[in-house]
Amino acid sequence: MANPKLLILAGDGIGPEVMGQVTRIIDWFGDKRDLAFDVEHDLVGGAAYDKHGTPLHDDTMAKALAADAVLLGAVGGPKYDELDFSVKPERGLLRLRKEMDLYSNLRPAQCFDALADFSSLKKDVIAGLDIMIVRELTSGVYFGEPRGIFEEGNERVGINTQRYTESEIERVARSAFELARRRNKKVCSMEKANVMESGILWREVVQRVHDTDYPEVELSHMYADNGAMQLVRAPKQFDVILTDNLFGDILSDCAAMLTGSLGMLPSASLGAPNEAGRPKALYEPVHGSAPDIAGQGKANPIACILSFAMALRYSFDQGDEATRLETAVEKVLADGARTADLMGEEGGSPISTSEMGDAILAAL
Amino acid sequence: MANPKLLILAGDGIGPEVMGQVTRIIDWFGDKRDLAFDVEHDLVGGAAYDKHGTPLHDDTMAKALAADAVLLGAVGGPKYDELDFSVKPERGLLRLRKEMDLYSNLRPAQCFDALADFSSLKKDVIAGLDIMIVRELTSGVYFGEPRGIFEEGNERVGINTQRYTESEIERVARSAFELARRRNKKVCSMEKANVMESGILWREVVQRVHDTDYPEVELSHMYADNGAMQLVRAPKQFDVILTDNLFGDILSDCAAMLTGSLGMLPSASLGAPNEAGRPKALYEPVHGSAPDIAGQGKANPIACILSFAMALRYSFDQGDEATRLETAVEKVLADGARTADLMGEEGGSPISTSEMGDAILAAL
Ligand SMILES: CC(C)[C@H](C(=O)O)[C@@H](O)C(=O)O
Ligand SMILES: CC(C)[C@H](C(=O)O)[C@@H](O)C(=O)O
Repeated sequence: MANPKLLILAGDGIGPEVMGQVTRIIDWFGDKRDLAFDVEHDLVGGAAYDKHGTPLHDDTMAKALAADAVLLGAVGGPKYDELDFSVKPERGLLRLRKEMDLYSNLRPAQCFDALADFSSLKKDVIAGLDIMIVRELTSGVYFGEPRGIFEEGNERVGINTQRYTESEIERVARSAFELARRRNKKVCSMEKANVMESGILWREVVQRVHDTDYPEVELSHMYADNGAMQLVRAPKQFDVILTDNLFGDILSDCAAMLTGSLGMLPSASLGAPNEAGRPKALYEPVHGSAPDIAGQGKANPIACILSFAMALRYSFDQGDEATRLETAVEKVLADGARTADLMGEEGGSPISTSEMGDAILAAL
Repeated sequence: MANPKLLILAGDGIGPEVMGQVTRIIDWFGDKRDLAFDVEHDLVGGAAYDKHGTPLHDDTMAKALAADAVLLGAVGGPKYDELDFSVKPERGLLRLRKEMDLYSNLRPAQCFDALADFSSLKKDVIAGLDIMIVRELTSGVYFGEPRGIFEEGNERVGINTQRYTESEIERVARSAFELARRRNKKVCSMEKANVMESGILWREVVQRVHDTDYPEVELSHMYADNGAMQLVRAPKQFDVILTDNLFGDILSDCAAMLTGSLGMLPSASLGAPNEAGRPKALYEPVHGSAPDIAGQGKANPIACILSFAMALRYSFDQGDEATRLETAVEKVLADGARTADLMGEEGGSPISTSEMGDAILAAL
């Protein structure tokens, strides 16, 4: 059987550096665990714009659609701030999400024991935290039409449209319930049904999917503003949080920051499973391109490495191998390996991006 | 000269209880500080629905428009959950905001020294916190058309419209810059200009207003998701945060919860100043109607009392009297007075709503 195909889009800023460590890990799984991948590299974001004048070339899009999984580093940087909206680095990422139809974005917010002191929250509030945020990723105000800046009378008006169909809500709800089944069987769905009709429809459809097919999962509904509060007050009350594209963007970043270590958090963006049960999928760290430290070997590769672990689990049905990699990461942290972003007040001297890669390979 | 007119809309749940203490404070200012108000009471929210079948009667709307300031308690409760969207308690509040044209919503997130332990955040992260969030309150996705749930093909679609005109952005931006001038002269404006055109227009107009009329204020722009992160990570980096209606709803609740004591936080919603320099204005606590503890004398009246302090400052130009009231509140807290919501882990026995009123009157 042919090896599964991985497309690596390292992107901008620290993307290439952290991805460099991921390729070493991929090679290790090929050598030692008999899990070989065919790896191809291409450009996205500012890097693609610099070469092709577009943040995602059509050929790259085609490769992404043909790949078994895409690994993405990060996009963006100050160099591209003045570019027109239509060719900004972010558009490359949004096009991938949309054309691959990656409607279910999984963002774990997990607090690593070794790093619990790192959070701005009190230790007892976050120690052991393990939430999964499921964010709708291909619709809502990110993609709704009409959109744009228009003349109206003698001034301009900026318009975006929040739009959700029943089937869009249903499929992402299913993915949240499926996940909850394999976790603590609790889903909290967040919207603003008290002010937005799209939120009313959201709530109704989520409730229906639950009642029909997942009655054994505990479902609650919360207004998104209260959700933000509860995340700050007592995040451990949550298991799976289900929400739309825009609320998910904000709430997942809020949740991520609770852990205090953004350099640790992976994400998966999944589409519908094909006949073989394998979804279209893109994996990327939650952190951005961090242009301020790019090229200095300071970046923490763990979020990107854990994104590959998610790929093993969700794309290649290799849950045990994913756990192996995650355990290796936990071990090096417990042993005290720290990149610069993980240096606490105690001080000490940080290790480099590639030294972190070395440590994880050694632990494997 | 006639006394200024206050309209009190106590609303639902704990609204009437906490407002009961505010009326005592108002009377005190009339008796002792020669600041007499003509006070009228009326219904809003579920209470209005129960009597009139609408969450805000037209007569009440007319009184609100004629008043010099409106004080509101809280609206909503489980009893009204099944009501149609158009008559839900929240619609009463939204109608007041819209018809009074209260475009600038001021939400201070302040950490009281005596309560710093109360936050889920580490003490050094929030001690001394003093942020002002300025949220646009009469436009955006809360009010944009088209909106509703429509049939499309053989399913339904939920639609809301995010919409901002240049003049809507400009006036709320001015109000943020004016406030910043009297504070630490920093404004951070938050939107999602990387994915929403309405955010691009927002950013551009805020920058223009700044460059033209407030160059001495330091202005920065941040994506709203990063804003949520930064609020959790290091909230003291902010002075004034300027944002739209929906982002403001979520970010202000997130910021409020950083302080750990929602029962403490007031808000002001202001319109354009009239010829006498007095804006249309509504003052309300940030907390909700807390139906679970309503009628038990447990509620903390401080947020509502501090909302009246904001009224003194922003509607009646009585900054010194506002400070007098705020200082009294700080004193009773420093002396250890605690309602049930402010009981920490040390335990102790909480005082009642009216005992907190007593303590504040005594401190005055
Ligand atoms: C880069 C940006 C377009 C993106 C988003 O808003 O979705 C990012 O914030 C994210 O959460 O993945
Ligand atoms: C009650 C609700 C309509 C309201 C809002 O969403 O604006 C509330 O959450 C607030 O922030 O004042």
